[in-house]
Amino acid sequence: MNQIESLDRLINELSKLPAVGKKTAQRYAYFLLSMNESDVRDFADAIITAKESVHYCKICANFTDKEICDICSRPDKEPIICVVKEPKDVTALEKVRDFKGSYHVLHGVINPLENKGPNDINLRSLLDRVNNEHIQEVIVATNPDVEGEATAMYIANLLKPLGVKVTRIAQGISMGSELEYTDAVTLSKAMNSRREM
Amino acid sequence: MNQIESLDRLINELSKLPAVGKKTAQRYAYFLLSMNESDVRDFADAIITAKESVHYCKICANFTDKEICDICSRPDKEPIICVVKEPKDVTALEKVRDFKGSYHVLHGVINPLENKGPNDINLRSLLDRVNNEHIQEVIVATNPDVEGEATAMYIANLLKPLGVKVTRIAQGISMGSELEYTDAVTLSKAMNSRREM
Repeated sequence: MNQIESLDRLINELSKLPAVGKKTAQRYAYFLLSMNESDVRDFADAIITAKESVHYCKICANFTDKEICDICSRPDKEPIICVVKEPKDVTALEKVRDFKGSYHVLHGVINPLENKGPNDINLRSLLDRVNNEHIQEVIVATNPDVEGEATAMYIANLLKPLGVKVTRIAQGISMGSELEYTDAVTLSKAMNSRREM
Repeated sequence: MNQIESLDRLINELSKLPAVGKKTAQRYAYFLLSMNESDVRDFADAIITAKESVHYCKICANFTDKEICDICSRPDKEPIICVVKEPKDVTALEKVRDFKGSYHVLHGVINPLENKGPNDINLRSLLDRVNNEHIQEVIVATNPDVEGEATAMYIANLLKPLGVKVTRIAQGISMGSELEYTDAVTLSKAMNSRREM
């Protein structure tokens, strides 16, 4: 593209980032080349250091740089597990700050089209945790799409024989949205899950 | 943000990229962590290698990994210099393939608001080139904004005493655009630069 091998290689690597095409990758590459050498070294070092020090928590499989993550190490955590698809879902839920339990990261959902079955996601350790940690409730917070719903159903069927309460995060109209522009499935869920005031 | 120091540092570094906010940086960081270790090393190495091997061409100041870039080294180049603001402008113009001259990269434009004067951009060597390379024409292809126009005017005044022809890329309505939605300044330029058919 530029007939400069190392620049083309850099653009090629940068375009592997999610939702980054050749043009954005080129923009990033030119920006990196315009930085001074020590800043570029810091940039590259941050990537390597993060990869070397960050791994999965032994309990919940969220990202951590310790053996057990800060959330699982909370002394006052409630015996509730919130099951999510990805680490970024934990970040989103932690912003709310009113959940005091721990998480369980599946690192994927059941998806037959992508050949992903129950054994391809982090499910086995969830069963062990429910037994060993005297968990009272498992909240399944996978996304409200086909794969997320199917995974939620599978988890509910798996855990109910253990006598644990399994719940699903509520679906309904979002704050600030308008009924007029809300899709039919969401509206139907919102109507069926109505609450007394 | 995540209470994992190395991950926060990585997100911080990634958010330095142009037009990348915290959320996109986090997405990139999680993606990098999901890559296997050797791919991550390749990624970081591409950044370092590009920074180490790519520098400015001694003649035109475009990016190159040689002393003199491929374009300046063309044996059959015409004695025409196209002056641009940034290396990416060269990439854009080279796609057209009907320009057979060489380029001159200013690495900026004159911008009083950012305290950038004529001495802060790569102008001095342009004068030397016009003298030494027996240049017949200098096409000023800076962007058609206030700073680009001012820089073009400055360059024209600087070079005209040398007896070289100085031209400016044409401004007018873009291919595929509609008169109705074209701004007044562009329309005015398009009318004034009308050509006989």
